[in-house]
Amino acid sequence: MEYAEIIGLVAGFLTTFAFLPQVFKTIRTKSTTDFSIIWISTLTFGILLWLVFGILSDNLPIILANAASLFLAGIILVYKLIYK
Amino acid sequence: MEYAEIIGLVAGFLTTFAFLPQVFKTIRTKSTTDFSIIWISTLTFGILLWLVFGILSDNLPIILANAASLFLAGIILVYKLIYK
Repeated sequence: MEYAEIIGLVAGFLTTFAFLPQVFKTIRTKSTTDFSIIWISTLTFGILLWLVFGILSDNLPIILANAASLFLAGIILVYKLIYK
Repeated sequence: MEYAEIIGLVAGFLTTFAFLPQVFKTIRTKSTTDFSIIWISTLTFGILLWLVFGILSDNLPIILANAASLFLAGIILVYKLIYK
């Protein structure tokens, strides 16, 4: 595995699983007042496009990171839509 | 420019500038209660590593997106640290 790919995997791991404590906090508090709806909806769609980009350019760190991010950001988006 | 690179640039534009309304909202309200400190600090460090990955793998969409994201996520991190 290349040096750059290892850094990419660590980066993907961090930016993806950084969402976990946020998802836990949001589920626990059901409070999403401080979130911008434009931010979380645009972010979720953008992550979907990153996933497409990763698949098209056959880039494993980008595919793995964005598949997981999409799931986690999607949870926050759903909570923002339900609990304004 | 390749098809995949265009999708990567659009993805980078969306996930980067999605932060803008969030930054504006955070600066305006000075309220960061709903943000997890672990999320925003880990995210900011992860974006820094994505930037390194982009430079090492000479990937323009990743470099541009993460340079701008680092700046914007950094603002939210600073606000979270100042206004708990």
